[in-house]
Amino acid sequence: MSNKIDVAIVGVSGYTGLELIKILINHPNFNITYVSNSEGGVSLKDIHPMLEGVIDMQVQKADANDIAKVASLVFLALPHKTSMGFAKQLIAKDLKVVDLSADYRLELDLYEKHYCPHEDKENLPLSVYGLPEFYKEDIKKASLVANPGCYPTASLLALLPFVKYLNANQSIFIDAKSGISGAGKKLSDLTSFVTVSENMFAYNPLKHRHTPEIIEKIELLENKSLKINFVPQLIPVTRGMLVSVYLTVNENIDAVQVLKDYYKDEEFIRIVSNPVNIKNTSGTNFCDIFVAQDGNDLFINASIDNLLRGASSQAVVNANLMSGLEENTGISKIAYAP
Amino acid sequence: MSNKIDVAIVGVSGYTGLELIKILINHPNFNITYVSNSEGGVSLKDIHPMLEGVIDMQVQKADANDIAKVASLVFLALPHKTSMGFAKQLIAKDLKVVDLSADYRLELDLYEKHYCPHEDKENLPLSVYGLPEFYKEDIKKASLVANPGCYPTASLLALLPFVKYLNANQSIFIDAKSGISGAGKKLSDLTSFVTVSENMFAYNPLKHRHTPEIIEKIELLENKSLKINFVPQLIPVTRGMLVSVYLTVNENIDAVQVLKDYYKDEEFIRIVSNPVNIKNTSGTNFCDIFVAQDGNDLFINASIDNLLRGASSQAVVNANLMSGLEENTGISKIAYAP
Amino acid sequence: MSNKIDVAIVGVSGYTGLELIKILINHPNFNITYVSNSEGGVSLKDIHPMLEGVIDMQVQKADANDIAKVASLVFLALPHKTSMGFAKQLIAKDLKVVDLSADYRLELDLYEKHYCPHEDKENLPLSVYGLPEFYKEDIKKASLVANPGCYPTASLLALLPFVKYLNANQSIFIDAKSGISGAGKKLSDLTSFVTVSENMFAYNPLKHRHTPEIIEKIELLENKSLKINFVPQLIPVTRGMLVSVYLTVNENIDAVQVLKDYYKDEEFIRIVSNPVNIKNTSGTNFCDIFVAQDGNDLFINASIDNLLRGASSQAVVNANLMSGLEENTGISKIAYAP
Amino acid sequence: MSNKIDVAIVGVSGYTGLELIKILINHPNFNITYVSNSEGGVSLKDIHPMLEGVIDMQVQKADANDIAKVASLVFLALPHKTSMGFAKQLIAKDLKVVDLSADYRLELDLYEKHYCPHEDKENLPLSVYGLPEFYKEDIKKASLVANPGCYPTASLLALLPFVKYLNANQSIFIDAKSGISGAGKKLSDLTSFVTVSENMFAYNPLKHRHTPEIIEKIELLENKSLKINFVPQLIPVTRGMLVSVYLTVNENIDAVQVLKDYYKDEEFIRIVSNPVNIKNTSGTNFCDIFVAQDGNDLFINASIDNLLRGASSQAVVNANLMSGLEENTGISKIAYAP
Repeated sequence: MSNKIDVAIVGVSGYTGLELIKILINHPNFNITYVSNSEGGVSLKDIHPMLEGVIDMQVQKADANDIAKVASLVFLALPHKTSMGFAKQLIAKDLKVVDLSADYRLELDLYEKHYCPHEDKENLPLSVYGLPEFYKEDIKKASLVANPGCYPTASLLALLPFVKYLNANQSIFIDAKSGISGAGKKLSDLTSFVTVSENMFAYNPLKHRHTPEIIEKIELLENKSLKINFVPQLIPVTRGMLVSVYLTVNENIDAVQVLKDYYKDEEFIRIVSNPVNIKNTSGTNFCDIFVAQDGNDLFINASIDNLLRGASSQAVVNANLMSGLEENTGISKIAYAP
Repeated sequence: MSNKIDVAIVGVSGYTGLELIKILINHPNFNITYVSNSEGGVSLKDIHPMLEGVIDMQVQKADANDIAKVASLVFLALPHKTSMGFAKQLIAKDLKVVDLSADYRLELDLYEKHYCPHEDKENLPLSVYGLPEFYKEDIKKASLVANPGCYPTASLLALLPFVKYLNANQSIFIDAKSGISGAGKKLSDLTSFVTVSENMFAYNPLKHRHTPEIIEKIELLENKSLKINFVPQLIPVTRGMLVSVYLTVNENIDAVQVLKDYYKDEEFIRIVSNPVNIKNTSGTNFCDIFVAQDGNDLFINASIDNLLRGASSQAVVNANLMSGLEENTGISKIAYAP
Repeated sequence: MSNKIDVAIVGVSGYTGLELIKILINHPNFNITYVSNSEGGVSLKDIHPMLEGVIDMQVQKADANDIAKVASLVFLALPHKTSMGFAKQLIAKDLKVVDLSADYRLELDLYEKHYCPHEDKENLPLSVYGLPEFYKEDIKKASLVANPGCYPTASLLALLPFVKYLNANQSIFIDAKSGISGAGKKLSDLTSFVTVSENMFAYNPLKHRHTPEIIEKIELLENKSLKINFVPQLIPVTRGMLVSVYLTVNENIDAVQVLKDYYKDEEFIRIVSNPVNIKNTSGTNFCDIFVAQDGNDLFINASIDNLLRGASSQAVVNANLMSGLEENTGISKIAYAP
Repeated sequence: MSNKIDVAIVGVSGYTGLELIKILINHPNFNITYVSNSEGGVSLKDIHPMLEGVIDMQVQKADANDIAKVASLVFLALPHKTSMGFAKQLIAKDLKVVDLSADYRLELDLYEKHYCPHEDKENLPLSVYGLPEFYKEDIKKASLVANPGCYPTASLLALLPFVKYLNANQSIFIDAKSGISGAGKKLSDLTSFVTVSENMFAYNPLKHRHTPEIIEKIELLENKSLKINFVPQLIPVTRGMLVSVYLTVNENIDAVQVLKDYYKDEEFIRIVSNPVNIKNTSGTNFCDIFVAQDGNDLFINASIDNLLRGASSQAVVNANLMSGLEENTGISKIAYAP
């Protein structure tokens, strides 16, 4: 085990923390040496009883000095704002960081407009956006990776292949559906079983703060401004995410061929011949994409596991790349289905 | 009971047949005198055990002569194609008919293009499209009402108020989600619990045959052709339907006000101030509509109970109007929720 | 409307409060004149948006003097302990009370052992246990009815017909399953969608405080002590309750015939020939009962809607009886299914 | 790869076939060389689209000669009766067989009473019952292992530790709940989403043919006859199984300690301190067991994944033992939760 890379997980109580543990337990090159939450003083199985008989570690109260002694790479599964305060300390100690929060995803102005004043302006410009299909080489060299949001991951992977066929400032519509785990563990009327079962509803339509993340990345990657109308919705599903992107291209294209060419070298993108579904990607790092067209009008349909490709497995892919490993090391392709 | 109107239900085995029974049992002005399915020879509670202790009737093998002896108005809850063969016989006997199938919904050419050769060309032109908010006066005088499909009901109610602000031939996107009961009782891999639970997927995207029904009614009512891109999806919900209509209007409007003005006299339309959900309309004849806008881009969001407003309660509303009763007679406004 | 009985609902925010409203809106003999919760100052549709367009009433801060001015019968849908404080005031004003809490269900000693000191010892002995199949005549004369718990309702209706064939102090096993609405609206990890979906688990096994309610009523009605081993469980269902009672009778009986004879005059009990299910009673006041036997070993299987027969519709049945009305007035027999 | 053991899966279309593939893909010592179903001529991803990009194999029409050329151990995931016909051929060719059907689980008389005439009476006496906690040494030497049913696996693991404290011929009650995948892929009204969602019901109560399997194994292992009253039920869950065993022991015991002592060396049994739930074992080979007692009355509560511990992962554990590997090789302990 001596030649494994020691890693820490900060923020182990939530769903993404649990998923990180589940992936890293079986990872051939990473070794979990430290797990923490905001209070410490418990064991992992107290927080996550399904880990009894699987892994037994004490959960620490998060401390950057302690981490620096036992790990060289850190996954931060913390709330927005808390994360940047902690990341700053870790980077100062030359640790590599994969941050699952929003804190390093946006450029300064946009971040401060949609979230709060930024507390780590020094490192923000150094962070790399961790969407491997688009930033692979940068991620390999990065010390700080901002892991994308789940909605932007699915939306960008669906939309980017077609941006070159869109007019500037064109209106695009994204109808997105998320499993309830996307709302996190915090108790809320909106996530109680009685509210959610046999139900479905939108929230923050046209106002969700993942929208600027989508817009900014398109501008940076394709140098084109779009008007993204984004509608997130909750569905009676625990994990998984489906997005429908609706748009009209400005020339006659073969949309399926565009997708196939665009992602021909990407092992975690599957261009599928039937509409995507949630269960085929649940439990994996895949993003499945389907497209249908009627003339120049397109329906682009993507599915990911919100907790894996939308958070924890994408984070480990990023850590793999930052560590000189193959992108797919220890990453699951096997769906939970049925 | 002598001054009640005697009614028959033909096709009592399916979900919409059951819903018709549930409504008509408690209806103050209708009296069920005849129920049938394709085989007969059983009692209602054999087919629908939850009706034990509620209503006890023999289910007949459907026969137009028998019906004419005991009823003056008939609900046809039959498959497409079967329905028109039967309706023709009933109309010849001067019975009023509410047909829940697609057989009288479209004009001849469009019907034959999307379904099959029409077998009742004589009555087809006399049928009235049973969307009460738009055809109320015609329905009152009709002998044959074509009850709208569930998807067109929700889509048209959401879309029609805004058609005047759209350009001809403009592309509109409708992302529609239906509960599984919408697929009927026929067994299919697509509707098994293992397939559907914790899942969601589109089917026939951009090709569903409810699309021409939507397009035709807009043309007839508003004299404007639109390009409707319609994507139906199945969600892990038994009953209920949600549609998201995405479009860009061609002038600066107050979308909420447009809706409120448009439906100000309609008691079964509720313009709501939060995104709609399925459970608030499930069990009722309401159509809830919400709209959000960002400049000229609109997200119009409607919810109905697919089996009630999308089928059986709308059918009884139509029967009410055809019989000189108040529209709301015997029609539920009380949701099943929680 | 002048010859209707004016009723108040105290505690209108929870699920049972909502169900009371839904029943009473359409009740031919009761007229809701007053609704309250602990804070007041809102309208009904603020708390229950599905009531928009159905009923519009101001929700008051609960006050016994105000109630006495406008109502003669009061439904208390309050938490245990709060309820008896309020009931005492209402009874002092000669109002009839149906209390949905546990406060008047048990005899004094048992109540104080399992709940807390009783604050209305004066009225407690006058209360009648509102299980209509067993206390109908007493309920008709009562001013204060203690509405049974949902678990005791289903368990007693299943078990009582067989008590005469049991030995004293015999061990009985009850495996009970409740929909999540039974836990009320209070937020809890145990009732969040992510915890409940695709899951099932027992809670407080062999220790639930509905057990003494079951034991006491059997002793009072049948003069026999039994050892009830009661295991409540949560299932991924919003509403509905299923109990499996396992026991061995001490003589050779025809269990189906015993049930049929026992309940032959009861319109809200259905003895069914297949195992019961939740959906056939959901939305109704029915209790469905099925029994299978292998020699002297019995499996008795009952289903009720936990919010209706287990709470609100049973409360209205009790109010009907207290008011000289037919038991079934305004009570639904029509299941929500499908 | 040359030192891996080549294995075949016969009957790859169903849920247990899919689970076998998912386990064996990542197994360090087994190599899938052959997969078949009853018709052949397709690829794995045609049958199981979630395997696209994961494994690509042609599905053969099952043929024993072909299998003998490429594999030395065979998993049979076939229907009862079909399986024994095929197993016989494979054993004749000196292949090792793990049979997931019921065909070799019971002694001859009992099998023929509950299923059909047995067609492989020669090999039946040589088969070993594949419940590793009880037959580990026999399995290691076996060429033919009969993989237990899901209900017997959970029931026996819960019940066996307490058999020594039971009287002969005592009545035991087992209230068992299975996820819908347990019914297999065959379409049925009972497994459609509309039937199952928000519902729960028993089937074949006191008559299920897994009962004799439970009784026989207790007699063989503990030399004691019991009267098992077994009630299987379907719950709105895709995968997972929960059993409640109710019994009265004949002496004063510490039930928790009995369990802990009994299974102290078993890594796939977890004695847990709270009632078990489905999600903690779903995705794993664990059987979680909890016990509560009130005097001599016990509630024993066990949870397994019906498709894994109840079928495919237990089959691979058996194959591991038959192949001289560690029991836990390639077997998952990591739950799918959340």
